[in-house]
Amino acid sequence: MSHGKFITFEGIEGVGKTTNIDFAKAWLEDRGITCHLTREPGGTPLAEEIRQLLLVHRDEKVSPLCEMLLFFASRAQHLAERIKPALDRGEWVICSRFTDATMAYQCYGRGMDLQMVQQLAQITHADLMPDTTILLDAPAEVGMQRAWDRGETDRIEQEKIDFFQRVREGYLKMAQQEPNRYQTVNADQPLLDVQIDLAKTLESLIQEHLI
Amino acid sequence: MSHGKFITFEGIEGVGKTTNIDFAKAWLEDRGITCHLTREPGGTPLAEEIRQLLLVHRDEKVSPLCEMLLFFASRAQHLAERIKPALDRGEWVICSRFTDATMAYQCYGRGMDLQMVQQLAQITHADLMPDTTILLDAPAEVGMQRAWDRGETDRIEQEKIDFFQRVREGYLKMAQQEPNRYQTVNADQPLLDVQIDLAKTLESLIQEHLI
Repeated sequence: MSHGKFITFEGIEGVGKTTNIDFAKAWLEDRGITCHLTREPGGTPLAEEIRQLLLVHRDEKVSPLCEMLLFFASRAQHLAERIKPALDRGEWVICSRFTDATMAYQCYGRGMDLQMVQQLAQITHADLMPDTTILLDAPAEVGMQRAWDRGETDRIEQEKIDFFQRVREGYLKMAQQEPNRYQTVNADQPLLDVQIDLAKTLESLIQEHLI
Repeated sequence: MSHGKFITFEGIEGVGKTTNIDFAKAWLEDRGITCHLTREPGGTPLAEEIRQLLLVHRDEKVSPLCEMLLFFASRAQHLAERIKPALDRGEWVICSRFTDATMAYQCYGRGMDLQMVQQLAQITHADLMPDTTILLDAPAEVGMQRAWDRGETDRIEQEKIDFFQRVREGYLKMAQQEPNRYQTVNADQPLLDVQIDLAKTLESLIQEHLI
């Protein structure tokens, strides 16, 4: 049995990751491909516990580097215990967010050192990069408005828009730097059109896989 | 106020780290130097919680890389919240075990990739290596016998001796590679003689510090 494909979905809040991941899974399964859905942060009980450490309120200040190492510890466990075994079984793994999200949010968004995060990515998964990363791209205002409409943000502050603007630009820069891995889909159009574009991308992945 | 010195004590089980660290603190404080004692693993509440994650029994297999990243996450927090603030206050920090222990036990003892651990050390504390590492050195059999005498090991198996032999050799190799940082003290002699040697080392550290 051949090794499955590892596909990640990326994009800012409100671009439709969940909806389009469900569509991609259904579309691929209609074509006989077993898909394994997973998401970061988390993915295994220990990976969840690691991330929980970061969420509990504590008096102690958490160092940004400690936080970053915990992200990657959680990711290492997710890879070892869930993503790689599924790929080894021949399934395609569709993961909502991965290391690119760390780079987009922590580095481009918040100014953390990009080279350091790249080194951690090398240590954690030099042997397994996503085969394809699907970037659902829309302007920050559009994503924020959609997230707001479904009640996920309290109010849309300019600061938030500026932050998501930097995150979006980070994603677009990575897409430009890795054109073979990245497939950018315009998410600022009616859902049907997004899914037509997505289906084309998936079709080309199947063709590649058959070669 | 000048920045304090960062001193780590290393060595296999049973070489007398605790006794000699207490001696070093008392000896330095007699000479007017405020010492801050700490130890790995742990050192702050969050750092302890991270290490606790590794100790609880779980059905899920913990990936060696996840474990290693958790070690360094714990260390990053220990450095940021305890070691660096004490050094900034002008105190000397004496830490029982540090990154050299990770290299000795995980790499030389258990075969984990040394270069990967060195990269993580670079990421976590390129800006702060110990000023001095005091290696308390004794043959594995001697250390194991002492640990056994105080009830810390159940029985002394050949496998354990072989393991601690590899760990000791790792320490000696690192001492050879970094002669400026490492001070090796023969721990296989009567305690009074160990402490005479240790006092000489501490005396030279004070002299350096005054220059």
